[in-house]
Amino acid sequence: MLSEANIINQLKMAFPNYIGDDAAVLPFSKTEHYVITKDLLIESVHFNCHYYDPVSLANKCLQVNLSDLAAMGATPRYIVLGLSIPSHYQDTLPIFLNAFTTACQRANVELIGGDTTRSPDKLFISVTAIGTANIQQIKYRTGAKPGDVLCVAGSLGYAHLGLQALEANTEGLTLFKDHFLNPSARIAEGRWLAAQKGVTAMMDLSDGLLIDTERLCQCSQVAGIIDCDTFLPSKEFDSACKALACTPLNAQLTGGEDYSLLITMTPTTYHDLNTTFQAQFGYPLTKIGLIEKGDGVILMQHQQRLSREAFKPFSQFGELS
Amino acid sequence: MLSEANIINQLKMAFPNYIGDDAAVLPFSKTEHYVITKDLLIESVHFNCHYYDPVSLANKCLQVNLSDLAAMGATPRYIVLGLSIPSHYQDTLPIFLNAFTTACQRANVELIGGDTTRSPDKLFISVTAIGTANIQQIKYRTGAKPGDVLCVAGSLGYAHLGLQALEANTEGLTLFKDHFLNPSARIAEGRWLAAQKGVTAMMDLSDGLLIDTERLCQCSQVAGIIDCDTFLPSKEFDSACKALACTPLNAQLTGGEDYSLLITMTPTTYHDLNTTFQAQFGYPLTKIGLIEKGDGVILMQHQQRLSREAFKPFSQFGELS
Repeated sequence: MLSEANIINQLKMAFPNYIGDDAAVLPFSKTEHYVITKDLLIESVHFNCHYYDPVSLANKCLQVNLSDLAAMGATPRYIVLGLSIPSHYQDTLPIFLNAFTTACQRANVELIGGDTTRSPDKLFISVTAIGTANIQQIKYRTGAKPGDVLCVAGSLGYAHLGLQALEANTEGLTLFKDHFLNPSARIAEGRWLAAQKGVTAMMDLSDGLLIDTERLCQCSQVAGIIDCDTFLPSKEFDSACKALACTPLNAQLTGGEDYSLLITMTPTTYHDLNTTFQAQFGYPLTKIGLIEKGDGVILMQHQQRLSREAFKPFSQFGELS
Repeated sequence: MLSEANIINQLKMAFPNYIGDDAAVLPFSKTEHYVITKDLLIESVHFNCHYYDPVSLANKCLQVNLSDLAAMGATPRYIVLGLSIPSHYQDTLPIFLNAFTTACQRANVELIGGDTTRSPDKLFISVTAIGTANIQQIKYRTGAKPGDVLCVAGSLGYAHLGLQALEANTEGLTLFKDHFLNPSARIAEGRWLAAQKGVTAMMDLSDGLLIDTERLCQCSQVAGIIDCDTFLPSKEFDSACKALACTPLNAQLTGGEDYSLLITMTPTTYHDLNTTFQAQFGYPLTKIGLIEKGDGVILMQHQQRLSREAFKPFSQFGELS
């Protein structure tokens, strides 16, 4: 069986110029590039219709794509929508389409085309999002340097707990379910961070902190040290983990779909950037580790090195771009 | 139930600026536009894996998208690939990916990104293709004028007969099966036609001549007169129709996936364009009708008007762009 990493590697070997970041970059004007990304959402793989109302689902399809643009520091502009619609979703479809329209209008993006077909049984959604980004400011996964600080803007593991609660039909845990059902791309944060010279690399956290940090480090040819002591789960997070029979650290390291931003920045800029970021966006750039020479990701807790093997990813996602 | 035409209309009302052509057009440089399209191919809707070998399937996924670019007169440049892979296709996947890579390289397009996920049971393929086209030459569906000649470059109904033969497991009929399994986008023809001033509108024939002519006429706010006496089915076509229990005219008017080009041009230019086209590409621009004032499509045979209702489309496709 070909793993998703293998698929990506096979295609990357044939087409080395573009594949490897949150989104691909195409020439546009002297000052701006186009940035283009595609994410699939498949019923029974990424969601189930019995807990996903069409309004939230339509918004999520858009937001997960906008999040890839945010991670490059781009401003979203255009959307191409592919829908394969099973008979069980036909009556719900007008609500979904209305909601998708509204979500696009709110995000100030224009639907420019797409394709619709029937589906044998599952709802398949394929969204392509196109943005524009300042050539000088656009951020890639390749820019992290030894000595940089590793930061996260946003939550870790919340969406995963929400998904687990929804799949298990667990009552309550609304905060976590909402993180999964109604994510918001951090567009403003991405643009602001991209404009800061001290920021060296950026990507969005769709598949989980550990696997995504590994990807960033691989692209930058550096090692990442994640300091697990910096994760301070709230009481609410702890009790959600208990209810769902998982450990907080596992959820934080491997839970996907938070659509937080993973950022590296020069150590001298961290303090000031964090202060300004917090003042502007109302939450911190949480420092969770460091970049060093080498490769791979090392997990540290209580000055002990943790085994990477204990933390397997939950997600089946795999981005080419 | 919301039909595909209704879906497109609902979205077009909200986003009137782009939707309605084979592909959407985005600004690029002073001389060129980007042209972008997305087509879905779904197992058990558009194909079945028992008759579709992965090499042909990979090529078709690419060609159907390139055909949309051809219809705008664009040169294909970039591809974004979305794949949702069921367990039954895992062993075949490396062959598919190799073939897709080769097909891209042959078409001189670069794979720039995408997304891969597992699928519950069906293979789901979403390709986004991006080309560039000369701003002055790019052709739309909106340019047909009363008095124009309606032409087709390529076959009509062949792919449909091939699909019917494959689905019914009919032996022989290789020519028709090959039309369905291995279509080629008419890129060179599209570019050449787009550069001709006499060509007023163009689109590709993916869903069948009748429905696609209706779409072109609707976009141009004109009526189309299709002269069915111009269709001269070969003996081979006639006998394939007999074997598959359908009438030649029905297959020619409603069979989809030929990826021929539908073109309108000024009447004074037809003769010369056809002569040069035939010399260059080895087959004619078949004149199949006229454009008049009004709306809708009128079918004429032996000086009689045929009922539109007798010819229902087979296809479930519906392009937004």
